Amino acid sequence: MRQVIAALVINEPGVLASVAGMFAARGFNIDSLVVGRTQDPNLSRMTIVVNGDENTLDQVRKQLAKLVPVSQIHSFAGSDFIERDMILVSVKAGPSKRSEVIEVVDLFRAKIVDIAPESVVVQLAGTEDKIEAFLELMRPYGILEMARTGVIAMARGMQLTTHEETSNDSAKRVRSLDAPPAQALPPS
Amino acid sequence: MRQVIAALVINEPGVLASVAGMFAARGFNIDSLVVGRTQDPNLSRMTIVVNGDENTLDQVRKQLAKLVPVSQIHSFAGSDFIERDMILVSVKAGPSKRSEVIEVVDLFRAKIVDIAPESVVVQLAGTEDKIEAFLELMRPYGILEMARTGVIAMARGMQLTTHEETSNDSAKRVRSLDAPPAQALPPS
Repeated sequence: MRQVIAALVINEPGVLASVAGMFAARGFNIDSLVVGRTQDPNLSRMTIVVNGDENTLDQVRKQLAKLVPVSQIHSFAGSDFIERDMILVSVKAGPSKRSEVIEVVDLFRAKIVDIAPESVVVQLAGTEDKIEAFLELMRPYGILEMARTGVIAMARGMQLTTHEETSNDSAKRVRSLDAPPAQALPPS
Repeated sequence: MRQVIAALVINEPGVLASVAGMFAARGFNIDSLVVGRTQDPNLSRMTIVVNGDENTLDQVRKQLAKLVPVSQIHSFAGSDFIERDMILVSVKAGPSKRSEVIEVVDLFRAKIVDIAPESVVVQLAGTEDKIEAFLELMRPYGILEMARTGVIAMARGMQLTTHEETSNDSAKRVRSLDAPPAQALPPS
């Protein structure tokens, strides 16, 4: 089962190393791990996609919460949320194949950001499924190079704020977003 | 000086931990570090944005190359390349401010992916500068939440292939993309 988790962590040197080290040591099957800045310079936001059952998820959350620098952890399981992954992918597309490739790019609302005599570089943002479907269609042409960000996620209609009271009790720091999503209108 | 580096690393547990640990131990000022899958299941691609002079860059490259699992390292310094960062950002936008926010979203060719009574979630992909400019304009309205991927990058008109011959000589594995960019036509 695929689980998406977001954690706000104190932005200090070594945080990524300690979290990544913990996952490696415990052999968790991490699909993607993204760490990025937030609006608060003291906090970074980690998005983790992990494959496993309820027990694995529970372990990940407990282990993360044990790491001192983690300030909040949320699991998106069972809630309505937005997730986005992004790729830059260089696809073999000489003059004879270029229009076919462009047709698929347009259908996916992707964007061609560079064009060379024998290839194009495509930028696409979307869910992991959408990106996988696009790559599947590009594979027959030849994927020359690929850079991928991994997944970032956000709950619909509610915030993972940085101003919330934090507690020293690590048990309290583990919370699940099991509140029903607010009235949200997905425009796409 | 801002430097963007891409590295192809062997996709094994602990790679991220060892690279992140090395950066933390050496006190490198890492702006962003992204690790993502490639078209080759055996390799991951790391994009690192580091602030420092030529010496720092050289150190980063040497230290990375020393880590066994790194198969190739490229610095984009001095070459023409595409870089993309992505954010999901929740902005305070009640009915009275919503149209102002939407106006800026449209100007940046960003996308509203969720709308709640008092806020919108915006998705934006672009260079770090573009994203910073957008956030600057959103700040007065109130940034409630933010998830950011960090930078991925790709050289224009040439490939960082995964099929290239690799060498056991770590010195040889450190290469710089100082070749002139091929005929490339940036469409945007």
